Amino acid sequence: MSLEASARDKSFYHEQTTERMERHLTEPHWPLRTKVALACRILAEQGHESALAGQITARGPRPNTYWMLSFGLGFEEAMTSNIVLVDQQLTIVEGDGMANPSNRFHLWIYERFPRINAIIHTHPPYVSALSMIGEPLAVSHMDTSMFYEDCAWMPEWPGVPIGDEEGRMISEALGDKGSILLGHHGQLAACGTLEEATMRSIFIERAARLQLMARAAGTIRALDPACAREAHDYRLKPKYVGAVFCYYARRVLRSGEDVLG
Amino acid sequence: MSLEASARDKSFYHEQTTERMERHLTEPHWPLRTKVALACRILAEQGHESALAGQITARGPRPNTYWMLSFGLGFEEAMTSNIVLVDQQLTIVEGDGMANPSNRFHLWIYERFPRINAIIHTHPPYVSALSMIGEPLAVSHMDTSMFYEDCAWMPEWPGVPIGDEEGRMISEALGDKGSILLGHHGQLAACGTLEEATMRSIFIERAARLQLMARAAGTIRALDPACAREAHDYRLKPKYVGAVFCYYARRVLRSGEDVLG
Amino acid sequence: MSLEASARDKSFYHEQTTERMERHLTEPHWPLRTKVALACRILAEQGHESALAGQITARGPRPNTYWMLSFGLGFEEAMTSNIVLVDQQLTIVEGDGMANPSNRFHLWIYERFPRINAIIHTHPPYVSALSMIGEPLAVSHMDTSMFYEDCAWMPEWPGVPIGDEEGRMISEALGDKGSILLGHHGQLAACGTLEEATMRSIFIERAARLQLMARAAGTIRALDPACAREAHDYRLKPKYVGAVFCYYARRVLRSGEDVLG
Amino acid sequence: MSLEASARDKSFYHEQTTERMERHLTEPHWPLRTKVALACRILAEQGHESALAGQITARGPRPNTYWMLSFGLGFEEAMTSNIVLVDQQLTIVEGDGMANPSNRFHLWIYERFPRINAIIHTHPPYVSALSMIGEPLAVSHMDTSMFYEDCAWMPEWPGVPIGDEEGRMISEALGDKGSILLGHHGQLAACGTLEEATMRSIFIERAARLQLMARAAGTIRALDPACAREAHDYRLKPKYVGAVFCYYARRVLRSGEDVLG
Repeated sequence: MSLEASARDKSFYHEQTTERMERHLTEPHWPLRTKVALACRILAEQGHESALAGQITARGPRPNTYWMLSFGLGFEEAMTSNIVLVDQQLTIVEGDGMANPSNRFHLWIYERFPRINAIIHTHPPYVSALSMIGEPLAVSHMDTSMFYEDCAWMPEWPGVPIGDEEGRMISEALGDKGSILLGHHGQLAACGTLEEATMRSIFIERAARLQLMARAAGTIRALDPACAREAHDYRLKPKYVGAVFCYYARRVLRSGEDVLG
Repeated sequence: MSLEASARDKSFYHEQTTERMERHLTEPHWPLRTKVALACRILAEQGHESALAGQITARGPRPNTYWMLSFGLGFEEAMTSNIVLVDQQLTIVEGDGMANPSNRFHLWIYERFPRINAIIHTHPPYVSALSMIGEPLAVSHMDTSMFYEDCAWMPEWPGVPIGDEEGRMISEALGDKGSILLGHHGQLAACGTLEEATMRSIFIERAARLQLMARAAGTIRALDPACAREAHDYRLKPKYVGAVFCYYARRVLRSGEDVLG
Repeated sequence: MSLEASARDKSFYHEQTTERMERHLTEPHWPLRTKVALACRILAEQGHESALAGQITARGPRPNTYWMLSFGLGFEEAMTSNIVLVDQQLTIVEGDGMANPSNRFHLWIYERFPRINAIIHTHPPYVSALSMIGEPLAVSHMDTSMFYEDCAWMPEWPGVPIGDEEGRMISEALGDKGSILLGHHGQLAACGTLEEATMRSIFIERAARLQLMARAAGTIRALDPACAREAHDYRLKPKYVGAVFCYYARRVLRSGEDVLG
Repeated sequence: MSLEASARDKSFYHEQTTERMERHLTEPHWPLRTKVALACRILAEQGHESALAGQITARGPRPNTYWMLSFGLGFEEAMTSNIVLVDQQLTIVEGDGMANPSNRFHLWIYERFPRINAIIHTHPPYVSALSMIGEPLAVSHMDTSMFYEDCAWMPEWPGVPIGDEEGRMISEALGDKGSILLGHHGQLAACGTLEEATMRSIFIERAARLQLMARAAGTIRALDPACAREAHDYRLKPKYVGAVFCYYARRVLRSGEDVLG
């Protein structure tokens, strides 16, 4: 029977795909603290390094506690054992070292949005360059459709983010989106899972890179809204997001397993 | 005798070159399933990675069967043993795992064009950026002349390619060309051999990179049509294509031979 | 208690952060000669290579003596043992090899500014490209705020810097700034510590990269002056600078410790 | 005594530098065949790869013989033992394999210019992009001053260079320059020594990269002619060129010494 004769409505394939992903895509059971270390390594490998700038946090096992990398280390130095647990005064309650003083604004976001369990904030090069020209993120490619109508934009820069004011401003500007582009500064992903925050961080840098290259050469065309929304939801299926996180985690683990220790 | 005195018509050298290539350029005898794995690794090394996006397929040993990488793996993880054989319902008939649901549109292309035995579809960064500005591929360099009058262009994007509609649209838009640039999406090479599809995939990304850099700095000049057609045919000689594939395969194999297992 | 209720003035956090950094961030005690070698390796890893161009120097243990890499070696070949001590005639007084003849202009800067103890001059690609278009460095990102009102600009190029004239011109143009962009040439950082000169060299290349990418795609927006000055001072806190140097030194040391020998 | 009081005319330093280089910079004695293999590896490491395109040749031990890499291998696969000696019919007279059919135009250049002993022709990405927009190489940086008034430009592209016509055209267009930018094609360096051809090939790609980046962001400023000529001659001092070649050769040799075999 020809493909034309057996063609089905797309909803059939969406259901079939969801069902097959549920069955076939399995994930290792890493503790959350290890996943924070893996996310650090993944973003290091993806070129998010900017000396000591950038932070990855996740809600800890008790209210008002958060996992984060000890201050003074680079993302590629993360190990389970140097991910520390801090309280709301950024005092360490588990592990050794110093809390990153710039993580204060994460606390404001967690407090305002109970739905958010993980936050990643980085200053990778393409996002940084884009943040200097006063334009929001352009979404014009299937691979970046996860940001379609789902990336806020804060053009003002309130200065070094160690105080309370940036917490107020960023949580306000974020609203109900999963990502935000921060003027003169970088990007932030705030999500229900660390896996999604990691994927968003990888792909917002890719989106910024595509935007800068496309803008330097021509005019960016808009996506069809219906297709963009379909792709947004497809790419954010939890099973798909989990498979993407595992893929990048395996890239890290192939170069050594010390991140687990 | 001076070179001027012994100069010959170019057709002499074309014949001599073809004959010498036939005699001197030999290729290892890898099974097709291994070649699919090698093609995955080659494109990973060439920067075609976009998380889990992109697929490489080849016609299998029986009608309506196709080799492809098991879903959820990255190109650089390909091995002969995780290349699976699927049927026209994307059900696995040999090997373990899950078929990539986005491979449905490959089936449409195979059904429509019996001449095509291998398809590669990827979202590498320069092609992706180019696909956002609504312009066809520019061919202005000898190394990209394989695309001269031989790269189709589909500006519309029909959404996530898991249904039948994109199969219909892409196979229609491809026509008799060996490559197609897909708006908001990526590139596809559909050829008689996997070797040619691999070479085309490497070089369309290079062509897009050259185009973006050249456009950002100036105006691209057209090639002389007669020279461009001569170079197109020269670069697509099967022996030349085979030598290029083997060269890139050796690059992969120097970093380890697990791809063969 | 909510974050809003417990919010404090930012000066509180600045003090707290300074105090915590003093307590927690410790640095290994490398001899200065080893730090010069480490700085060479750090900049090699950061892509500052331009064949044999570029120099790193530091004031030596006696007046009018200076540490520098023996001429003819690349930055990535630096070891403690090939860092030589030269006098004001660029004659070697400790170690073997040849002094870099282009280091003469460093001597002029040291003579003019007793506050300066270390100088780094390199020709990395983005700074080099920026130096060709006759524009000063743009500071529009938090990570490059260390250059806010603190990067001089010398548009004229006096030729190969082996004579006295470039010493006169560059020291004049530098004035009281910590960095200078040199037209048709590269960048120079002249600081109280080698650590700061290293950090500035890494980040001026990043600033130039961001500027070139941003300019190719749009118009760069200015920073708020008060925020920029606050960030300038924050990023140049000696403890922070030391932590950044140590971070990059660890990157180098992870790939081998021969630099120490 | 202050530097101002002891300042000398620049000619003094030029002489001193030349004398010191003669005394201190020594080079290993590699056979020419090995140097051809090293040049291949150096350019591979510098990103000149374009599949099988590009060639490096040097005059052999007997009249009308030339060393070159056996066809079908990439630059990074070069070893002393796969550098073959060919005659003027591109027939191999020493070693195994096949001569690169595109090397015919090298023969024309050697015949026309007895001063030339080594030719390198490559299609690296920045040169390739520049070759598409119909503009000559811009020389606006000290590090690329070796091309000042010393880089020819051939806008026309005569097609695949396996015949005699391209030999005639390129040797004509080259004239008395050491380098040429070839429209729609790449770059060629033709020099008295392989060392200089290697250095020119590395730096013309850097020059093209700087030009493309600068052009995308602004307008390139011209160099002062007197300074540019001084720098041109300084950078082409044979001892300096030799030191640069040795530096890049050491980079290659650190990753393994099989190139010598």
